Amino acid sequence: MQLSSRITGLLGGGSDGWGVFLRARQMIEQGTQVTELTIGEHDIRTAAPILQDMHRAALAGHTGYAAIPGTTGLRDAVAARLQERTGVPTTRDNVLITPGGQSALFAAHMATCNPGDTALYIDPYYATYPGTIRGVSALPHAIAARAEDAFQPRADVIAAAAKQTNAASLLVNSPNNPTGVVYSRKTLEGIAQVCRDHDMWLISDEVYDTQVWEGAHLSPRALDGMAEHTLVVGSMSKSHAMTGSRCGWIVGPVDAIEHLTNLATHTTYGVPGYIQDAALFALNQGTGFETEIAAPFQRRRLLAQDILARQNAVSLVPAQGAMYLMLDVRSTGMSGEDFAYALLEKHHIAVMPGESFGTAAAGHIRVAMTIEDTRFAQALATVCDFAESLAA
Amino acid sequence: MQLSSRITGLLGGGSDGWGVFLRARQMIEQGTQVTELTIGEHDIRTAAPILQDMHRAALAGHTGYAAIPGTTGLRDAVAARLQERTGVPTTRDNVLITPGGQSALFAAHMATCNPGDTALYIDPYYATYPGTIRGVSALPHAIAARAEDAFQPRADVIAAAAKQTNAASLLVNSPNNPTGVVYSRKTLEGIAQVCRDHDMWLISDEVYDTQVWEGAHLSPRALDGMAEHTLVVGSMSKSHAMTGSRCGWIVGPVDAIEHLTNLATHTTYGVPGYIQDAALFALNQGTGFETEIAAPFQRRRLLAQDILARQNAVSLVPAQGAMYLMLDVRSTGMSGEDFAYALLEKHHIAVMPGESFGTAAAGHIRVAMTIEDTRFAQALATVCDFAESLAA
Repeated sequence: MQLSSRITGLLGGGSDGWGVFLRARQMIEQGTQVTELTIGEHDIRTAAPILQDMHRAALAGHTGYAAIPGTTGLRDAVAARLQERTGVPTTRDNVLITPGGQSALFAAHMATCNPGDTALYIDPYYATYPGTIRGVSALPHAIAARAEDAFQPRADVIAAAAKQTNAASLLVNSPNNPTGVVYSRKTLEGIAQVCRDHDMWLISDEVYDTQVWEGAHLSPRALDGMAEHTLVVGSMSKSHAMTGSRCGWIVGPVDAIEHLTNLATHTTYGVPGYIQDAALFALNQGTGFETEIAAPFQRRRLLAQDILARQNAVSLVPAQGAMYLMLDVRSTGMSGEDFAYALLEKHHIAVMPGESFGTAAAGHIRVAMTIEDTRFAQALATVCDFAESLAA
Repeated sequence: MQLSSRITGLLGGGSDGWGVFLRARQMIEQGTQVTELTIGEHDIRTAAPILQDMHRAALAGHTGYAAIPGTTGLRDAVAARLQERTGVPTTRDNVLITPGGQSALFAAHMATCNPGDTALYIDPYYATYPGTIRGVSALPHAIAARAEDAFQPRADVIAAAAKQTNAASLLVNSPNNPTGVVYSRKTLEGIAQVCRDHDMWLISDEVYDTQVWEGAHLSPRALDGMAEHTLVVGSMSKSHAMTGSRCGWIVGPVDAIEHLTNLATHTTYGVPGYIQDAALFALNQGTGFETEIAAPFQRRRLLAQDILARQNAVSLVPAQGAMYLMLDVRSTGMSGEDFAYALLEKHHIAVMPGESFGTAAAGHIRVAMTIEDTRFAQALATVCDFAESLAA
């Protein structure tokens, strides 16, 4: 039986970028010890007090259908959080709770793009972005952020693409996966200008907003006139080590949230009430808790900077946030993918090739700082030695 | 800022059928005591042992990203369940775990319909059906199941619509919400024939499969050649009183499940692992537990049959399952909607007008058997008295 072309064409053909990752998993299954620096997931689990609160809520009977847009408590807390961070008046009517950030990304594109519309996104990109756009029957159009610009996208390039394609939306992600770059105020002001000039929605994926090691996170929702142009995607996954709980949100204009709530009635039918209660409990722990969750990545980044300073074969993309390092290995003369495969075979260390995230990060590898410090430092030193041996 | 027409047009204009329900909620907020017979949700909460198992799984660390298609344990259990009920060989590769039945309905239509395709469904219908189809940019086409056919849809009518529209899919729901009708083998054989003849997908919503009071549930997946044509939608919500936990599934051909897993990567990114563990625990309690969860509805249906037998103004649609009764109130000369509003104002009893579920159940009301037995019996007696007074 024939399936829809939208689902059979979802991945867009070609490599899906997970080859090295899958090869590593295969080696592990066959008994090889592999150091995995591939996955954007904490090496801790969700904190017990959060789980205790979830259990309390469930036993208390919060196990029936929850309100589709989310509980008033969690919506209010997310609204307060966004208002505090952006200065823009924000109430629960600006908030839809979603089953995770990916669900929010999908819904945001459903709401802004009609079938056949073009949706812009920045290359290098998180693996699901083009498929999410294809999933809503829109046309993904990548805009390269160049290594020589420290992976800050350029407003003039976006403007040209917006004009050429009459794009319905632009998807950005700062702090950025995979590069670790935090967009500068200049970058974001330029992007905002393009959105205003071209009546284009900005979908702002801010799931790494608590992981900023230099400077500060700036949400484009805070910029002049942008509250009406922006759908902010957030999540409990990275900030509170609640990846598996699938709890995120969209913050945007009231009428957009109303329509997105109708969409949620027809796509997800809400988020478990006890998970929302646990998320509220977690948010109420305050920023100290968030700093604690982010601390290992900040610490490992410093370790990495020390190690990388001692050699010249591998250079670190100047990055300010997130749980990743993007390393330039072009001195070896190899592609990121070839380097990653060779590293895996020779040293049993798995990293993601830059090519897994588009074309703009070719000749790079992405290292996730998601293993224990000592092992992380050892692995990174090995990566550097390996690159040096190849560059020599 | 302009939103996509697919999201602004999701509800299709006109009444959404929730007027009586919302008026009742308004009256409750204003202090009136209203007996609500509107909602398809148990009057019990999720059983404590299930919640204890969930908590155990969470504390044990099953809080990270779960495998996108579902845990092998839950997929195996769902596969075994379907195989036992259909006789069709079924493995985990035929199963995708979804965050609830609604999510499964949406994904099934995404997978089978391209934008612009026609998707058939049966009237009377569950409230989200046409919006789900519009949500995937397909054209909803209702096929009336008539009161005079005891709301069993007719294969010749479906065949004519399939031919006329070249429909990509047909959505059926047995045991049926809102009518309580369980489709006969003859009905399902006829539907299967149409699907085979017209190369049409059958999306079979079987979330009430444990609530059958007469005869037996038959899944169309069991019928000759239909395993390749059918996507079965199931859920823990009704069978195990786990509505709020949002855990359901799609069972279908292996290649469809592979593509649906890709879609899930881009729409939901999986279901919380600890919820899947709890669902597995619940399924492992066996059919005795399911019978226990269904028992109140079976009991109240018998109560209702007794009450309805004593009068002639209201007649019960011959129904065999689900947690609802569909009552014909045409003897009153009123529409279902007018009757429901009048009942609410005069007796503070809220029911759903048949017109909330399309056009085929006009002049009917749907009564959910979801309150305690004595209050339920009293309310139903009042409904009958009210109808008699109007019919007189």
